[in-house]
Order: sequence, then structure tokens, then C-alpha cells
Amino acid sequence: MIKVGIIGGAGYTAGELLRLLVHHPQIQIQFVQSTSQAGLKVSEIHHDLIGDFDQEFVAQHQDNVDLLFLCMGHGKSREFIDKTILSSSVKVIDLSHDYRLKDKSVASDHRVFIYGLPELNKNAIKGANHIANPGCFATAIQLALLPAAGLIQDDVHVHAITGSTGAGQNPTAFTHFSWRNNNVSHYKAFAHQHLGEIGESMVQAGNGFDHDINFLPIRGDFARGIFATAYFKSDLTLEEVKARYEEFYADAAFTHVVDHKISLKEVVNTNKCILSIEKIDGKILITSCIDNLLKGASGQAVQNMNLMFGLPENTGIQLKASMF
Amino acid sequence: MIKVGIIGGAGYTAGELLRLLVHHPQIQIQFVQSTSQAGLKVSEIHHDLIGDFDQEFVAQHQDNVDLLFLCMGHGKSREFIDKTILSSSVKVIDLSHDYRLKDKSVASDHRVFIYGLPELNKNAIKGANHIANPGCFATAIQLALLPAAGLIQDDVHVHAITGSTGAGQNPTAFTHFSWRNNNVSHYKAFAHQHLGEIGESMVQAGNGFDHDINFLPIRGDFARGIFATAYFKSDLTLEEVKARYEEFYADAAFTHVVDHKISLKEVVNTNKCILSIEKIDGKILITSCIDNLLKGASGQAVQNMNLMFGLPENTGIQLKASMF
Amino acid sequence: MIKVGIIGGAGYTAGELLRLLVHHPQIQIQFVQSTSQAGLKVSEIHHDLIGDFDQEFVAQHQDNVDLLFLCMGHGKSREFIDKTILSSSVKVIDLSHDYRLKDKSVASDHRVFIYGLPELNKNAIKGANHIANPGCFATAIQLALLPAAGLIQDDVHVHAITGSTGAGQNPTAFTHFSWRNNNVSHYKAFAHQHLGEIGESMVQAGNGFDHDINFLPIRGDFARGIFATAYFKSDLTLEEVKARYEEFYADAAFTHVVDHKISLKEVVNTNKCILSIEKIDGKILITSCIDNLLKGASGQAVQNMNLMFGLPENTGIQLKASMF
Amino acid sequence: MIKVGIIGGAGYTAGELLRLLVHHPQIQIQFVQSTSQAGLKVSEIHHDLIGDFDQEFVAQHQDNVDLLFLCMGHGKSREFIDKTILSSSVKVIDLSHDYRLKDKSVASDHRVFIYGLPELNKNAIKGANHIANPGCFATAIQLALLPAAGLIQDDVHVHAITGSTGAGQNPTAFTHFSWRNNNVSHYKAFAHQHLGEIGESMVQAGNGFDHDINFLPIRGDFARGIFATAYFKSDLTLEEVKARYEEFYADAAFTHVVDHKISLKEVVNTNKCILSIEKIDGKILITSCIDNLLKGASGQAVQNMNLMFGLPENTGIQLKASMF
Repeated sequence: MIKVGIIGGAGYTAGELLRLLVHHPQIQIQFVQSTSQAGLKVSEIHHDLIGDFDQEFVAQHQDNVDLLFLCMGHGKSREFIDKTILSSSVKVIDLSHDYRLKDKSVASDHRVFIYGLPELNKNAIKGANHIANPGCFATAIQLALLPAAGLIQDDVHVHAITGSTGAGQNPTAFTHFSWRNNNVSHYKAFAHQHLGEIGESMVQAGNGFDHDINFLPIRGDFARGIFATAYFKSDLTLEEVKARYEEFYADAAFTHVVDHKISLKEVVNTNKCILSIEKIDGKILITSCIDNLLKGASGQAVQNMNLMFGLPENTGIQLKASMF
Repeated sequence: MIKVGIIGGAGYTAGELLRLLVHHPQIQIQFVQSTSQAGLKVSEIHHDLIGDFDQEFVAQHQDNVDLLFLCMGHGKSREFIDKTILSSSVKVIDLSHDYRLKDKSVASDHRVFIYGLPELNKNAIKGANHIANPGCFATAIQLALLPAAGLIQDDVHVHAITGSTGAGQNPTAFTHFSWRNNNVSHYKAFAHQHLGEIGESMVQAGNGFDHDINFLPIRGDFARGIFATAYFKSDLTLEEVKARYEEFYADAAFTHVVDHKISLKEVVNTNKCILSIEKIDGKILITSCIDNLLKGASGQAVQNMNLMFGLPENTGIQLKASMF
Repeated sequence: MIKVGIIGGAGYTAGELLRLLVHHPQIQIQFVQSTSQAGLKVSEIHHDLIGDFDQEFVAQHQDNVDLLFLCMGHGKSREFIDKTILSSSVKVIDLSHDYRLKDKSVASDHRVFIYGLPELNKNAIKGANHIANPGCFATAIQLALLPAAGLIQDDVHVHAITGSTGAGQNPTAFTHFSWRNNNVSHYKAFAHQHLGEIGESMVQAGNGFDHDINFLPIRGDFARGIFATAYFKSDLTLEEVKARYEEFYADAAFTHVVDHKISLKEVVNTNKCILSIEKIDGKILITSCIDNLLKGASGQAVQNMNLMFGLPENTGIQLKASMF
Repeated sequence: MIKVGIIGGAGYTAGELLRLLVHHPQIQIQFVQSTSQAGLKVSEIHHDLIGDFDQEFVAQHQDNVDLLFLCMGHGKSREFIDKTILSSSVKVIDLSHDYRLKDKSVASDHRVFIYGLPELNKNAIKGANHIANPGCFATAIQLALLPAAGLIQDDVHVHAITGSTGAGQNPTAFTHFSWRNNNVSHYKAFAHQHLGEIGESMVQAGNGFDHDINFLPIRGDFARGIFATAYFKSDLTLEEVKARYEEFYADAAFTHVVDHKISLKEVVNTNKCILSIEKIDGKILITSCIDNLLKGASGQAVQNMNLMFGLPENTGIQLKASMF
């Protein structure tokens, strides 16, 4: 059994992680840390864990684990690593953006973080001790674009609509039900922070990819999932592009190129990414759907864990979609 | 033109009131007061008023009005009246619960508040200078039950599902989109504060009504409206009950007894209440729908204003439903 | 491996069943029958099964299975059994209402169907060859009331709000998004067909339970789940009632009495039923939540299968909730 | 009073039109025709008209009107005009796409239809006898782009998310609540039929506009409204572009350029279009919101009627937004 601990256990991504880990056959949860909720039962905060998990939140992390998941807010992971003396045998998967970019991937104690997108870095992840788990938008968009990185000859236009859970559980004006219900808006147009990690992966996959990625993030009227579209002008045939994608994802455990018109709920509550590829009017159009909390966060973290510890990649994350 | 001012102009009920008053043909808005937003344009907070209303919030109320609407939180209206020297010629419509109950209906400066349910108190409202505007649940439930007050011989069972706007605009765990979307819960079972005003009106309408009203309020997965059901055992025929209701509402401007199976959206964004009456298996079942922010708050306030100032009762509040 | 076949494989309940069975460790799916979709890949109808299941729908059922799931519309199961010569070694779980009531539980070929509510009939199910899987409302309401069946001294008042999937996948005016979004309505007031099976179970559990169950079913503005409340006057203390429920559900695999204020999404996409019990103002109030497609249909069918074949009751149905 | 008749009175756009016309101060509704519902009361189909409108649907149109609104499906208007002998004094507003394109704008009886976008053709509309009312997407996108038609030097990229009412009231797989709730998908990528009318207007406004408009229409998870974004590379400053838009819309009654971050619900249930303009990273980004059934259909039809009959442009369509 792999012994794991969770730091920052009261938030959305930790909740999702717990929902996965309590049924994972190879995992023993040693502790769930939360500064704000220490002493409460975990199921008093994550109510749906009733019957599945009986532990209480603890205030302090422990060192007797094989793996730590860091589920704190952005910026807090680096702070934690900086100030904590952690046994060198403890592996880390960080769900924040703190170590994702190459020039920020080395921690103050010299731990080196590998960017944890299995479709791009599977072998490196298998040998890694520290993983920077990708962002949710970044995952959806990279899986849409990486196979084409070496083929793209023009600017790329990306729209992606995200559910409200992407904004975390802190209640704000933009997550108020009365405002968000039946509403749509956009934010951080052409300037979303995930463009950094997307750009680095595109260069890695495409030998010097150098085109604009125009990315417009949109707040959708639902709680879970990301629906992304990406298109670019291209002289390639649909068959050529599809062949490239199918080769790229030949050994991907959760990413599927499909032939039908896709819709978001086909992946909600699963760790899958589905991609549809069309050529229309001289443009290649890729549509990509993921669950932002699973393939875009906690599910991918478990996928990375499985790879790091030599387990079958899909252990514990073959999930029932909530299609309807 | 009737000159009006609004105290507490930044909240939901004030916003709805403004949406009505800006198109009301007999109204001149003198000022909109807000302590928190003074100096901002009103349309910077209530964005949809763009093009309709150009004033700024002011910090202090003014006395040069015919009517003040009090749109503050519960408890704040009494505080405001207690500490403010208000010209005796200024009429007041209070949207809080502060003056609704008979033993709380007299203010410290001896102003007497009339309970502003036109279907019950139309003549008194016409002559009133101060109105305690009914609660939203209270309106839906009273309109379902008042005509039957003298006929009911058994306990009454009421369920009412409310939209999230009923909880105000302060963001909380229970109004967070990620939590409330597709979710249902109940609160204040058998103990909701509106039972007080409902009970007093039932006694008034029914000459000593003395049965239990078991009321279970439910948080629904939508922003606007209240869908209420009420049933009680009865030996009366459906025809007898319907005749009583039709007589009671013969001169109601917005309350309609209908013959079809009703659904909430038929009244959303209007000032209407629709009622359906059925007799099934020895029970009379009344279904009642209103928009909680209109007939349940700001629309009824304008209806009361129209009555107080001798205008046709429906002036400015014949609204287009957003049925779809 | 247990070999199973599904009759009527294109509908919602069959879809949910497949989502469970494809990851169930002890199951081999022999065939999925659909008259309307024969020849198509199953994943062309249930799109989210991409990557999980490669078979095509077949037109005819086969006899080489240990267990048949009947997922056809109400009335069609009896028709199928009547006209089909089925090997006597084939067990059957029927998800329709055709064999649920005692006087309809024997098929024309003398197969005897056991009512498949594990919390009531676990031992009988273990020995059964044919199961009538309970209705969704019936499951939620029975789990709310059965432990109290012998304690109730007065009428019971039940409201239950259901998601749109309860109405099946045939598009109608009442399942049109434009109508149902943000809407509420009720139907079959005090006359829902599930009252029959509820009544029989109450008699079984309560030694002659003989009180009215007033049940008002409500169409909610969400796709999955049932949120039910039930209350009755009682002199019992809360502790007495809770003790009774905890005893009744002591060995229930999925039904939990909890202490917090519950909300529907805590069970959505799981096979759980959660119950909260309160005593307020002389009334015992039980709140019960299930996922109508899982504990209310396909999940309970798998639970029954596990019991019939001697597997651990929760095999393959420990599911991740989609709490957010 | 202007006497009007409606052909095709049972659908969504006719319903919205009726909701407007029943309160319009200058209108007398002579008849509402519906082949399928003739003989029923109009309020038996459009339930929310209870209390506002008492007529029945008629089977045949009448000639004793000043204006006919055609609210039939696409293709049916031309069929109706072709086969009907209509008094030459009867004006027509057609809500279908049948007469929108220039080479289809003359009817078989020589009636000439003017494209009814007031922001583009106000003077022509004032003098017109026949109006082709614009499409919903076409309205949102034209109002986003027309002022810039002469300034654009590069391809334009448009995404627009529409509510389910855009798909009409016929229930289909794509309008089923269980499917559409919390779901997103796209359709007719780069090939939507409204591109034709958009293109013609861009040429008219921009003296030979000749760039690609890449338009990706998206099905949103809400009933009403269109949220559109459009961007293009540009060397112009934000101030230059804003000045152009403000000049273009100086006398627009319902289209407003605003300075805040906009969201869809600011216009839902109104006849407004709001536009925000940003310059980011060398691109001009326009965001445009309308209610698809009002400014995108029936509201704009009334606006056109007001112009045709010399009424103030906003008569009867100053509507309360349902912001929350």
C-alpha cells in the first residue's frame, strides 16, 4: 500500500482527490491536513464521504508517507516547501501552479518538479519524485493542440468555457448562484496564466512552435467541466491530422479521438479527455472536453501517482460518467 | 409626478424596484441612497440599468419626497426610523419584516404601518401612509390560503420552493453556484419567520382560524420565484372552494385562479400570482406561484404605492413574463 | 465471471447499468440488445462509453448468460417474459414496475419475482432467481419510512422532487430544456403509481401499517436525483426514532443516517441513500436523498446482482460522488 | 390604434410578440392565427398570458389589419405570401429568414422587404411596408461588428453562445433537459446560415468589407440570450475604435457601448444590446449580448413596427431585465 498525505484538505481539489483515494485499491490515507478545519471529521466538510472515510483533519502534516499531495492555493505550495523540512524519501505531487514553468521547477531544497501531463511526459513522470500537476485549462488546450504543434503554420484561436468549480470554493460575486445561473461572461482575455505552461509544452512537442495562441476563457453556467475549441488555418487534410493525433495518443490511457459530435457531459465526472477533429473551410477545428476537477486536477494527480509508483495507469480512476 | 427616494439602494430588492420605477409613468426618482456605494453610478452596481437611469448613489437620504422605500436588511428599517427625523408628510413603504406583525406595527414616532397585501387590505392600503410590505413566502402562502381561512377544518401542509435571490446578494456557502447548481435542501422546517404574518392574516380572514400550518421551506435550483403547495382535508367540493376563491379575488389586479396545471415560470418576472385548485382523494390542494422579487417584494411595493397614491393599481407593473 | 445480457439497451437505465458493468470486476457483458439500435456500436448511443466498451447492439437476446437485465419500458418486461422461452437457469433482474406488486409477482412461466430492496429483503434477494427492482421514488420514500413503519400513529406527508431523468429519454414538452430550466411543477398529486409498492413494504415492515401516505411528486430543475421529505406527528423522542433507524440500517451497505443538514448532491452519481432525522414541533421529519438512476434504478440492480451471486454487496458500485 | 394580426401564433417568437403587444399602448390585436391550435384560447398555449389576453386562436388570417407578423418556420413565410392574396395596404414583418438576403428580398407579388436592423437601416425601415426581421445570431454579431466594418484589416473570429430557445419549441435530443442541462456543444461551425445576412450588412456598412468571419456557434446551458465575442488584429487605438462605435450608435434606441465587464443577464428579457470594447495584445475584442427572443426576434420586430408607424422607437419595449 502506498501511504499518502494531503496538505490543504478542505478545498475542492482535495475533496475530489479524497473521493478518488478512498476507493483506490493501493492507497492508504495517512492524514488529511487542514489548518482551518483541524479537529473536524473530514466528512463534516466533504459530506458525501459519509460511509467512506472516518478520519479527522489534522493541523500538522506528518512525514511517515510515501507521497504528499499539495492542494493549497497558488503560491502556498512553494511557501510550504520552503519552510518545511521534508524527508527526502517523500514524493510530492503539487496541484498548484507554483512549479509548472521550467524556470520555476526547482524548489529551494533542490527538488526538481516534472510537468505532470502523462500524454507529453509519461516516461519522465514514471521516474519522477516530484510532479507539478498541470492546470485545468492548460490540460484541455494542450491535449487539443500538442499533436499538431509541429504542423501548425498560423495563429491558433482558442475558446474555452469553464464550470464554476474552476474558481474555487471561496464565495464571490462571480460564483454567486443568483448571478451565475443562466449567465455567461469572459475574463482574462488573451492573458490567462495557463498560457505559460501551454506555450512551453507546445515548444517541447513541436520543435520550436512559434505562433500566437489567442485564448479567450469564458465562465459557463455549470459547475464542472471545460469545453474548449481550437482552430487554425491549415493545408493538411483531415486524414493527415487525425493520423497524427491517433499516433500521438496511441498509448494514452484516458485521451480519445472520437468521430462523433462531442458534448461536455460525456466526460464529466471521469478522468477522460475526448477530442473531435474536423476540417471545415480550410481550417482544422479541434474540440476538447475534460472534467476540470478530474483530468484537469485531482484525477490527473492520481494518474501521475499511478505512473510514479508503477501501478497500472488507470488504477482507481475508471469512473462512471454522469452523462445525464 | 410622485417623488420617491430609496434607502438601501444597492441590494436585490432595491435593484428590482429601480427596474420598475425607471419605466413607471408617474414616478420621479429623487435619490437612491446607499451607504456602501455612495458616489458610484447606480448603473455601475445594477448594470442592466444602463441607458435607463443616470443618477449616482447618495450617502444621505433627503426629505423632499412624497414616498420613501426602505430596502435595507431586516432590523435596519426600525433602526433607521428610530434615529431619523422624517417629515410627517413623507409616506413610507418598508420592504423588511420590521413592522409586519400587529404588535410591532407602530413605529417609535407613532407612524402606524398597514400590512401591505392588497388582496387582503386594499382599502386600508389606499388610506395608508405607511406600509409594511409582506414577505415573499408569506405572500405566496397567504394568497394560497386566505380565501379558505374560514373553511379549513384541519391542519394545513405547505411546501414552498424558493429561488436563490430569496437569500439576498451576500455570497455564502448556500448561494455558491458550485454548491447550489442542481442541488436541493431545506431549512427552518416548521419554523420559518413568515409563519407569524401568515398566521395573523389567516385569523383576520377566517374569523379565528386555529389550525396548524406545517410549512417546509426548500432551497431550489433556480434564481427567481416561489412554487408553493398547500393542502388540507376537506369535505367541501372543488366547486365550492373554487367559487370562494373566485369571489375573494374578484377585484384582485394580479392574482388569478386558473384551470390548467401551472408551472413556476408562468409568473417569473411578473407581478402575478397564479393559483390552481384541485380536489384529490379528500384533500384540497392549492398550488401558488409568484416571483419572489416582484409580487413577493418590489412589485408588490409598487402595487401598494399605486394604491396609496390613487393610481390604477397596475400602473407600471404590467410586465412581460420570461416564460422561456 | 458472471455472464450478463441487457434487454432494452438504448435507454437511460441501461446506459447507467452499462456505465457500472463495464468497470465491475466480476462481470462479462455477453450482449446488449436493442430493437431500435441493433447494428450500431453501443458507444454511438452512450457516447461516454468511448474507450470502455466496444460491442454493438444486437437485435435478439441470447440464452448463454447467467443473468438478464430487463431495461424496457413499463409493461414491456411482462410482454417479453410471456413470449420468450428462456432457459430456467437464467436469472432475471427487471427494472420496470411489472412484477413489483405481490399479486403481480409471478410470471406466466411461474418465475417468482422478489422485491429487490436490499434494506428490506436482503436474505430473500440472496436466494432469489428473479428480482423486481424497486421504483426510484419508492426507494427514496421507503428508505425514509420503513424503519418507522411500526411506530407511526398518524398520517404521513411526503414531498419528493425528482430530476428530469426520471421521465426517461423520450423528448416531451415537460422535458424540453426551454420549459424545464428554472421551472418547477407537480404531477400525479396523491396518486403516483409507486404508492402501491411503498404501501406493501410498509405493511411488511410495520405489521399492519394503516395510515395515509400523502405523496406529492414534484418536477425539479435538475437532471439527477430525488430529494424527499416525510413527516408525521409523533410522541417519540428524536433519540428513540434515531435508534430505531440505526438498528434497521445497521447492516445496510449504502444507506446512512447522518447528523448534518443534507443536500441532494451529496449522493448524486453514487448508490447511496442518506437520511437525516429531526424532531421539530411534535413532528418527526425525515429527509432522504438518492440518485434516481443509481440507488433508484441501475445501481440498486447491480447491488441486487451482487447479493444474488454471493459477491460483496458493494462490488463495482463504490462510486465517486459528483458533489460539485 | 394599429391593428395587427399574427400568423403562426403558437411558437416561441409569436409568444414573445404577444407578451409585448398585449401591453403595447398603440396596438390592437385583431387575431392570432394558428393552424394547429385553432379554437383553443391563446392563454391555453401561452399560459403566462392569463389575465392579459382572452382571444382564441383562429384558423384563417384576416385582411382587416394594418400589419401582419409572420411567425412561422423558415420557408413557410414565402409559401404563405406566394399563395395568399393579401390586400396591398397590409404591411408585413416577417420573422423568418425567407426575405433577408438581397437576392431573395422581393416576393412573388412584388412586395420588397427591407432588412430590419434599425441600427443599420433606420430611415429605410421608417419608409418600409415590408420588413425582413434579422436573425438572432446575425443581430448580435452585426451589432458587434458593423461600426468597424470599414476599419477591419484582418480576419474576424467570432464565438457566440446561444440559449435553447434559439432552437425553437419542437422537442429534440438537443433540447432535452437531461441532455442539455450543464452541457455544452457546438454546431454548424464556420457554416451557420446567418453568415449570409451578416456578410451583406458588413459590405453595406464597410464599403466593400472583404475579410473572413470565422463564426463558431455554441449551444449553451440556458434558455435565453446570446453572448457573442468577436476579435480581430488592429493597429487602431481603443479610443479610436470606441469613438467610431459611439458615433455609429449615437441615435440607437437600445444599443449601448458600456465600460464595464458585461455579462449576459444584463440584457435578458430586454430589447437591449450591450457592447464592450477592449484592446488587448494587438487585438480589438468586442463582446455583444442580446436576448435572442427580443432584440434577436420579437422585440426587434416591435421596434421595426414602431418605426414603420411613426411611433417613438421604444414604445412598449422598455422592459424590465431579469438580471437575477
